[in-house]
Amino acid sequence: MNEASKNHLLLKVLNNESVERPPVWLMRQAGRILPQYRKIRSSLSGFIELVQTPALAAEVTIQPVDELGVDAAIIFSDILVIPEAMGLEYELIEKKGPFFPTTISSASDVNALSEGMAAAEKLHYVFEALEITKRELDGRVPLIGFSGAPWTLMSYMIEGQGSKTFSKAKKFLYQEEKAAHELLRKLTTTIIAYLKLKIKHGADVVQVFDSWAGVLDKQLYAKFCLPYLKQIVDEIDTAPVIIFCRGAWYSMQEIIDLGSAGVGLDWNTPPVTARTLSQSTVFQGNMDPCQLYGRPDEIETRANTIMKEMGQHHIMNLGHGVYPDTPLENVKHFVNTVKAHSY
Amino acid sequence: MNEASKNHLLLKVLNNESVERPPVWLMRQAGRILPQYRKIRSSLSGFIELVQTPALAAEVTIQPVDELGVDAAIIFSDILVIPEAMGLEYELIEKKGPFFPTTISSASDVNALSEGMAAAEKLHYVFEALEITKRELDGRVPLIGFSGAPWTLMSYMIEGQGSKTFSKAKKFLYQEEKAAHELLRKLTTTIIAYLKLKIKHGADVVQVFDSWAGVLDKQLYAKFCLPYLKQIVDEIDTAPVIIFCRGAWYSMQEIIDLGSAGVGLDWNTPPVTARTLSQSTVFQGNMDPCQLYGRPDEIETRANTIMKEMGQHHIMNLGHGVYPDTPLENVKHFVNTVKAHSY
Repeated sequence: MNEASKNHLLLKVLNNESVERPPVWLMRQAGRILPQYRKIRSSLSGFIELVQTPALAAEVTIQPVDELGVDAAIIFSDILVIPEAMGLEYELIEKKGPFFPTTISSASDVNALSEGMAAAEKLHYVFEALEITKRELDGRVPLIGFSGAPWTLMSYMIEGQGSKTFSKAKKFLYQEEKAAHELLRKLTTTIIAYLKLKIKHGADVVQVFDSWAGVLDKQLYAKFCLPYLKQIVDEIDTAPVIIFCRGAWYSMQEIIDLGSAGVGLDWNTPPVTARTLSQSTVFQGNMDPCQLYGRPDEIETRANTIMKEMGQHHIMNLGHGVYPDTPLENVKHFVNTVKAHSY
Repeated sequence: MNEASKNHLLLKVLNNESVERPPVWLMRQAGRILPQYRKIRSSLSGFIELVQTPALAAEVTIQPVDELGVDAAIIFSDILVIPEAMGLEYELIEKKGPFFPTTISSASDVNALSEGMAAAEKLHYVFEALEITKRELDGRVPLIGFSGAPWTLMSYMIEGQGSKTFSKAKKFLYQEEKAAHELLRKLTTTIIAYLKLKIKHGADVVQVFDSWAGVLDKQLYAKFCLPYLKQIVDEIDTAPVIIFCRGAWYSMQEIIDLGSAGVGLDWNTPPVTARTLSQSTVFQGNMDPCQLYGRPDEIETRANTIMKEMGQHHIMNLGHGVYPDTPLENVKHFVNTVKAHSY
């Protein structure tokens, strides 16, 4: 492939260059919405087997680039590989979600966890998947690696599963402050080592998902999240970092001030609100994933409004992962609308 | 009971009078945190039996007034009695939550529902519970009645149960706009009739809970929620209305502009943010319920900070219902901290 046919749009925007239109990709694009994915998935015993089989993980990573024409690939994986590498195994229960048979409930549980490079390097199957993907993409589009944020991973490790309130994990913050900080510190060193290895093995950009930020508040976020996110942003210096703190609208200014290359926005943050806080930040998002259930003309109108309100320094995406039952033609219409746009 | 021993603090604040300290009560105070409640509850077959037995519902409504010394009672009931009265029966599954065996999935399902006074007056057991409570309270503290908001009730009626994303209910908004408006209209007439009956039978204040506002965004909230909430606020003219739209930070100004007597704040809305939008609105909230897992001195510090930042025109409460495993002594310490406060 010659240089001219390579799509550097995402990297240009993250490098603050001006572009003709925003790049577009979708959170959770590698997976459940594509029939090609469901075919591979149904031949396997489970989701985790797919995550741990590099050739197949690479294949489903590339599928949306071929099928949807998105401007970036994101490696097919799971945020919970990090707790596993630190010593806490998990299962994925069909239609229920992740489940940890053993959870963290005390300082000594935290002390027993491994961390940093020693933990991260166990995830060889992820690095192998990145290498295969990188080779097969042949520079067509940039490759994104990702990790859960310390708080989000910690909440799963304490709750043992999803929760409506994450009150058990929050209780740990209030009652076991010292152990909570130690757990967050260990997670941070592991996330940094893991993201560095991902970059080394082929990721051009990395995104950190703080999916459960929305259960906290400004005080807790300042104390238990922002310092660790800051450390990640500062120490990852070989590729752009996108930070996505879902639901943390109350700390949006502080998140912008972390100085990451990009900041993800969830679907209920009005673009105008974000732009009022910062004209120059590269924001990523933030179409309501449910808007893709709507009519094509409505999808187009909403996408165009977001692009107009965001202007330059924008990566188009949804404000949450695409839902499994989204009509594929609507996803394509969304992508094509963005690709037809010009500033 | 003579007039001097009656506590009108909540009504005074909602009437914009200045007071020495904020009134305090807790969402979900009638119930699970009290051993007296658990004793009654364990003698019954289920939660719904308790809701439908007026003498017992009255008893658990008054328990927190006696045990915690709060400044208001809130009738023990459930938001899903309204869908039931409209023709959609539900069950409460232990540790799982509400479940509707039949759900709404089309315009004809919506057409089959009854509405307004004809539906609301079926809920005689609620009105009877209010009358008993009112009589037994003998004016000690005001009595609060409540309802779910149209959108929140609609989401349960479509999803059939709780959901992480409420994407099925949101899909209905995008794909069945006309039927969605018809359902919301029917819910609104029923809620208005129901709240008027509650006031007639003893409620001094009513609160409307839009518990799932946080899954929407500014566009959807403006289109499918605010007009119906406005109608409720305008038509309930015989008692103060408190509107609590959890997670609807993106429409906070519009919610304030509805002109209700009080506006509830969830725990992640910084008090300063709310006060910046309005100095004169009566805000209710908004301590993090998980803060009550913390040490007494920390509970005190946080409560005092909230009261200082809120100033007058404030009803102290949590920003979400109290969690079942909250230590009772911490709840009492929270209440006593507020009662010891003076502006």
